[in-house]
Amino acid sequence: MDKETHVVIVGGGAGGLSAASNLNDNSIRVTLVDRRNYHLFQPLLYQVATGGLSPGDIASPLRSILKRRKNVTVIMDEAADIDPNGKRLILKEGELSYDILILSTGVRHCYFGADLWTLNAPGLKSIEDATQIRSRILSSFEKAERVDSPEMQRELLTFVVVGGGPTGVELAGALAELANHTLRHDFRNIDPSNARIILLERNKKILNAFPPLLSRKAERSLKRLGISVRRNTSVTDIEPRLVRIQSDDKPEIIKTQTVLWAAGVQTTGFGRLAGNRTGADLDKMGKIIVNPDLSVTKYPDIYAIGDLAHFNHPGEKPLPGVAPVAMQQGRYLAKCIKKRLRGQKIEPFKYFNRGSLAVIGRSAAVANLGERLRFSGFFAWILWLFVHLMYIVEFENRVLVFIQWAWHYFTRNCGARLITGQNFFNRPFNRNNEEK
Amino acid sequence: MDKETHVVIVGGGAGGLSAASNLNDNSIRVTLVDRRNYHLFQPLLYQVATGGLSPGDIASPLRSILKRRKNVTVIMDEAADIDPNGKRLILKEGELSYDILILSTGVRHCYFGADLWTLNAPGLKSIEDATQIRSRILSSFEKAERVDSPEMQRELLTFVVVGGGPTGVELAGALAELANHTLRHDFRNIDPSNARIILLERNKKILNAFPPLLSRKAERSLKRLGISVRRNTSVTDIEPRLVRIQSDDKPEIIKTQTVLWAAGVQTTGFGRLAGNRTGADLDKMGKIIVNPDLSVTKYPDIYAIGDLAHFNHPGEKPLPGVAPVAMQQGRYLAKCIKKRLRGQKIEPFKYFNRGSLAVIGRSAAVANLGERLRFSGFFAWILWLFVHLMYIVEFENRVLVFIQWAWHYFTRNCGARLITGQNFFNRPFNRNNEEK
Repeated sequence: MDKETHVVIVGGGAGGLSAASNLNDNSIRVTLVDRRNYHLFQPLLYQVATGGLSPGDIASPLRSILKRRKNVTVIMDEAADIDPNGKRLILKEGELSYDILILSTGVRHCYFGADLWTLNAPGLKSIEDATQIRSRILSSFEKAERVDSPEMQRELLTFVVVGGGPTGVELAGALAELANHTLRHDFRNIDPSNARIILLERNKKILNAFPPLLSRKAERSLKRLGISVRRNTSVTDIEPRLVRIQSDDKPEIIKTQTVLWAAGVQTTGFGRLAGNRTGADLDKMGKIIVNPDLSVTKYPDIYAIGDLAHFNHPGEKPLPGVAPVAMQQGRYLAKCIKKRLRGQKIEPFKYFNRGSLAVIGRSAAVANLGERLRFSGFFAWILWLFVHLMYIVEFENRVLVFIQWAWHYFTRNCGARLITGQNFFNRPFNRNNEEK
Repeated sequence: MDKETHVVIVGGGAGGLSAASNLNDNSIRVTLVDRRNYHLFQPLLYQVATGGLSPGDIASPLRSILKRRKNVTVIMDEAADIDPNGKRLILKEGELSYDILILSTGVRHCYFGADLWTLNAPGLKSIEDATQIRSRILSSFEKAERVDSPEMQRELLTFVVVGGGPTGVELAGALAELANHTLRHDFRNIDPSNARIILLERNKKILNAFPPLLSRKAERSLKRLGISVRRNTSVTDIEPRLVRIQSDDKPEIIKTQTVLWAAGVQTTGFGRLAGNRTGADLDKMGKIIVNPDLSVTKYPDIYAIGDLAHFNHPGEKPLPGVAPVAMQQGRYLAKCIKKRLRGQKIEPFKYFNRGSLAVIGRSAAVANLGERLRFSGFFAWILWLFVHLMYIVEFENRVLVFIQWAWHYFTRNCGARLITGQNFFNRPFNRNNEEK
């Protein structure tokens, strides 16, 4: 046991899990720490929030994914602090000594200082977020069915999504699908397809990371679904029953009881603390600016990967916070650590960009696979479906998710639209998992 | 609109839903009130509590089930009171006038006065109950993996199920399956199959409603799964880390952090209130003792069905609180109301007993289909599977559940074992849906 190298990984997301599964070497002992007992496939979380999938469909127990890796121990606990000189990770309930530490704690949503908005505009990062957003959306339809005043109905059936990045676009698209098709015959006093879905984007275009042509196509697809896309529009305040916006420099009020936040992310409290403890440079989202080999300045035994890491190839923009980057970094690091133990030379990390995808709704997506391969519509959607399925299948045989998707596609019926939890009649609801 | 008969149904369980779907007559307007937006298939709830199925698999939106019934309106609200003389149902948010009222509000678990036990021994009646029990069971394994003291490990890996009726037997069996098979390779410091599962039954035999031979067979099956079955044993107190029992009149203490309650039921607060308002006789569980046509004494326009109703054929024991009874009563009542409107004669309700089933675990069940047809083992299990699938398929095409079951059967992998919610590190947890 003495000669073993002990690698501690904090966070069982796409990055941490890739590192853990690829550190398959008997001279390495791996401990993976996560405050959850499951790996969550975040790219499909919006489908839980809109009732298309159940939480169990997009989450797998970490122990179950890693059960054949006998050199990996999973610990369910929360990282509280690190002592980079003593090489210790302090947990809420105990501590761990490490030879190598991999930080992969990701990001959560951020309100740019206006943290009170969390009460009226929940973000989408965890299963609890998703099931609460689901309850909120469905409860709005339920309430609208019960009220007589047309103004109140309009307010209840107005849904505002803040942020026109991939998450915001996906949420808005799925909401439109829900209102126009899934709920079509469900109500007697309201017509769910009268719901107004408004997507707010601060920049000149939605899907800002995509080429202008694809942004325009995405916007057109959203409009076809009946979504009102408001560019150059920023939120100035969010109150329980309204959103104040600044649209092309003119102030305006949107009356609504459902605001969903998809506008920005920042690292977690622990991520920021870890950055400070190691004297690393942080970017404005709190991400740790890493060396070419993903190590943290000054501490060659500490690495940061995934959404927590700010990495850029020389002269390029930093890599986006998406699953493929995290997974490639996890795999790279596993190789890198194995090489290091054998005294071999290490090449800097290099991201192989297979392209990016954003899904808009049923049969609509945009794909940017390089300058010559940009397309949208049905084939982009099929590609999106395929890529996401491959990911899920990589970690476990989730044939079920595929069957469920196919089922929903043909029936347009989402069986998972349950209102659960405690506060579905009261707003603002309890944000029970923030910063935990 | 004036000539229509307005039937109001409170509760969208097996009974209320059967009544609503069978009241397909244009001269009848139906309003179904439920505080949930979904119908829950209670007989499979124990599978959610043990990670075999996701909540979405056993729950369907009421609106979606009833969407083609244009004469049915679904309202998500909670019944607060009734005025039987004014023919009004008072809701938390509004009120409804009825011509005919059907009460189908079911039962919840009861602690025979020791209501504080709810903190340490949750019962299993709702989806929130199930996901919290799931978190509790899985967290015990997680904690046991972390502690060093063998005594503490033993305490954490001791699971006590109170009540040897069908629910208790199912829970104990599913727990054994989880510990012996599903979690087998998941941990490094503990062997989950060392978990002690103790089933406590106050009576001389478990499955008391079944013939003695089947009870004995069920007990033998449970023992084969490693479950310790303690008959003639009653609980005298439940504290955070122990259960005090009286076993064959000798007091004893079981150290455990997980106690699950499956020992008794009573009607809800509203059910009891409705009984009092109508001057009905209630049995000791608070069930309304109904007339031969399921109407409530003195008020021929108010009916009680399902678990809320205490009904017995002359000279026989009251009918058990199971889904088939509720469904047959719902169907009978729908017919009965249609006949009444046409001035036809009404026959008293007659339960057609197709038999009873209890499942013990993978490939083990007991079936009592009458005096000549009593059997146990694999074929009883296949029958159980078939009957439950038919039920699910009756309400919607849930082929998925079947595929999922088949999948779990062959792989023994339960993907839905997620620890969600807020309090998984603290006990006792928050009982957030009691009496709501």
